[in-house]
Amino acid sequence: MKIKLISIGKELLLGETIDTNSVFISQQLSLYGIEVNKKIVLDDNYEAIKQAMNYEFVDADTLIITGGLGPTDDDVTKEAVCDFFESKLVLCDDVLQSISSYFQRRGKKMVSSNLKQAYFPEDCTIMHNPNGTAPGFIIEKDNRTAIVLPGPPHEMKPMFFSYVEPYITKRIGKKVFTTNINTYGISESELEYRLRPLVKQNEKLSLATYADFGEIRVRLSICDDKNDDVNELLSRYTIKARQFIGDKFVYGVDCDNMQSALVKLLIEKNMKIATAESCTGGLLSKCITDVSGASQVFECGICSYSNRIKEKILGVSPETLQKYGAVSEQSAREMSQGVLKLSDADIAVSVTGLAGPGGGTEEKPVGLVFIGVATRKKTIVKQCNFNMLNNKSRESIRRHSQLESMKILIDVINEQK
Amino acid sequence: MKIKLISIGKELLLGETIDTNSVFISQQLSLYGIEVNKKIVLDDNYEAIKQAMNYEFVDADTLIITGGLGPTDDDVTKEAVCDFFESKLVLCDDVLQSISSYFQRRGKKMVSSNLKQAYFPEDCTIMHNPNGTAPGFIIEKDNRTAIVLPGPPHEMKPMFFSYVEPYITKRIGKKVFTTNINTYGISESELEYRLRPLVKQNEKLSLATYADFGEIRVRLSICDDKNDDVNELLSRYTIKARQFIGDKFVYGVDCDNMQSALVKLLIEKNMKIATAESCTGGLLSKCITDVSGASQVFECGICSYSNRIKEKILGVSPETLQKYGAVSEQSAREMSQGVLKLSDADIAVSVTGLAGPGGGTEEKPVGLVFIGVATRKKTIVKQCNFNMLNNKSRESIRRHSQLESMKILIDVINEQK
Repeated sequence: MKIKLISIGKELLLGETIDTNSVFISQQLSLYGIEVNKKIVLDDNYEAIKQAMNYEFVDADTLIITGGLGPTDDDVTKEAVCDFFESKLVLCDDVLQSISSYFQRRGKKMVSSNLKQAYFPEDCTIMHNPNGTAPGFIIEKDNRTAIVLPGPPHEMKPMFFSYVEPYITKRIGKKVFTTNINTYGISESELEYRLRPLVKQNEKLSLATYADFGEIRVRLSICDDKNDDVNELLSRYTIKARQFIGDKFVYGVDCDNMQSALVKLLIEKNMKIATAESCTGGLLSKCITDVSGASQVFECGICSYSNRIKEKILGVSPETLQKYGAVSEQSAREMSQGVLKLSDADIAVSVTGLAGPGGGTEEKPVGLVFIGVATRKKTIVKQCNFNMLNNKSRESIRRHSQLESMKILIDVINEQK
Repeated sequence: MKIKLISIGKELLLGETIDTNSVFISQQLSLYGIEVNKKIVLDDNYEAIKQAMNYEFVDADTLIITGGLGPTDDDVTKEAVCDFFESKLVLCDDVLQSISSYFQRRGKKMVSSNLKQAYFPEDCTIMHNPNGTAPGFIIEKDNRTAIVLPGPPHEMKPMFFSYVEPYITKRIGKKVFTTNINTYGISESELEYRLRPLVKQNEKLSLATYADFGEIRVRLSICDDKNDDVNELLSRYTIKARQFIGDKFVYGVDCDNMQSALVKLLIEKNMKIATAESCTGGLLSKCITDVSGASQVFECGICSYSNRIKEKILGVSPETLQKYGAVSEQSAREMSQGVLKLSDADIAVSVTGLAGPGGGTEEKPVGLVFIGVATRKKTIVKQCNFNMLNNKSRESIRRHSQLESMKILIDVINEQK
């Protein structure tokens, strides 16, 4: 399949909206080994759309087009595509019915402009839209296919999974199986280097990495015409891949992110957590409570920006603060122990450091961060020098402090019996 | 100017990287009243780039091309553009010098592959790059202009401001003056409706709105060939626009976001703040401490997820919790008063509510949030029903709770003498 993507909408050209649809579609297609070879963004313009289809179909067999399926006069994608395929728009009763019931469910009445959305080219396959009023469609003629989807991502994505994925599976005669390994603390190039032998040995296995700050998701996928045993094969590859990467860099499999992995683990172990934050100022507790179900495991969080609060609430001794300073191994230790005691949690974490941009000295530069983790049995403190990062911004130092803290927590919890 | 944008890079086609460059450039150009009429993403492919330039120049006079200027053999943008303009690449001594000193400053040695980056088409204008090794260039011939910039945003953006903006200003003979009004709590369509008369009365004035959750930034701009008095004119429009919008929806002018406005205001008034959070779980304190300089005003933050912590640390009375529950006007009141007392701050905020997805009842549905703000003089509590939002996700409810809290804080601080 030679695929190009066309995104339609003035808001994309004006920079008011970021085109995330094409990013999503590219990622999904890459699972099938299909590389998109061009992307285009156009205005809602009948002639421009037709002209682009003429030009782009010269060296492509499939165009995936998103946007411009709304009820207003501006929305002309369907009309232009229909015209290109020399087809005729006809009223589809079942679509009319489903648009009308979409409004009914919301206690609203369908207006006449929505009638337009029930017209479709003859001989196309309609993709129904449970999340909006604009259905999509697939139209094929003379070895040319146009897959047309609505612009809003929350309408487009479910439609992609329900219709486009099965269509591709059928057309290329293969199905895709994937697993994601979540890593932290290892570079993209190092990951690729370590996994190269595995990919070389197993030609069916494909690999892609997606970096987001320090977290890197390694996607293993197999695209195969057989269904049997592929999942088992993928499980075996996953185990091997973890060994090749090294367990200390892997924090989970098929997790959304580090905080989800942490909360899941805490629930499994029936443990409660508390946080004491200085330079991260609530970022840790915010991330933990981003996860739904966090209330089962999160006891309390203290953001102690001033020394007075570190003493008064967390019980850090004035001597420690005076002798070693707030940014020190000793303060991190007492902060984690303090909040553990205060909260009656099973495990506690503390972060104290210099996120900058001001406040650094030669002895304690911006980027110096201490992370403490305390349980009933022991307390450990790790010194991090985030001044070594390429990006030494306040945001970057705080994000890395959060990720590093969560990775240490996960390791400590896993060590416990 | 008829402008199209071409972004080059396989990572953009594979969906590994989001093309934010074209979003930035579109927004900047819109200031000059220039609407981009097409965007294209291509692979690093010599022939594909040349072919696209041939085709796209038919109905455009300017192409802004980003990416593919690196030192590797894959990077062919400069070569393809040079070929298209039938120019010749020549070694530029001053560029060679600046690349070499770029490495020296970093204690590294320039390698032979970087030599390629010092070659440029004859008769082009070189755009120097203080943030990387790939300079850009502008080349013009037969009323066609290509503006070629490196892909990494932190290299592209400063180059855009240093070279591309002055180039456009010169070419269209106009300069742009802008002010941003930061609003919250009003819809985009309502904003446009209220500001329409102002724009109608003043034809030089342009208006654009950028929405991010509940915050909407209104950008006022004047593109003029005169420099005199334009800033003064813009100031007058800004005052009028604020009146048209209504002061209760405006939280600042030219602010990055609500937390920056809040921290700036607290610094101005020499006030200290403390937070007591339940359903937002640290989001408020995280946002406040995102702002550099927050340590001057942020005293402490308590995330009290459990009732026990609400009693023990914040001093909420067991009777209140039992009689009214943790999600109640009374609890919000006592939480804000509790953290004010504990922290010795000048103003305190509390948030307690149901962020979901679980935990809602008929009486107290997901989305019900109470926000308390306490000062030495008074305490106010606002009940919010975020279950009325279109997007009722946990993230959305938490984000709206944060924004609403900060807006109330700003209003209360401004009311004080």
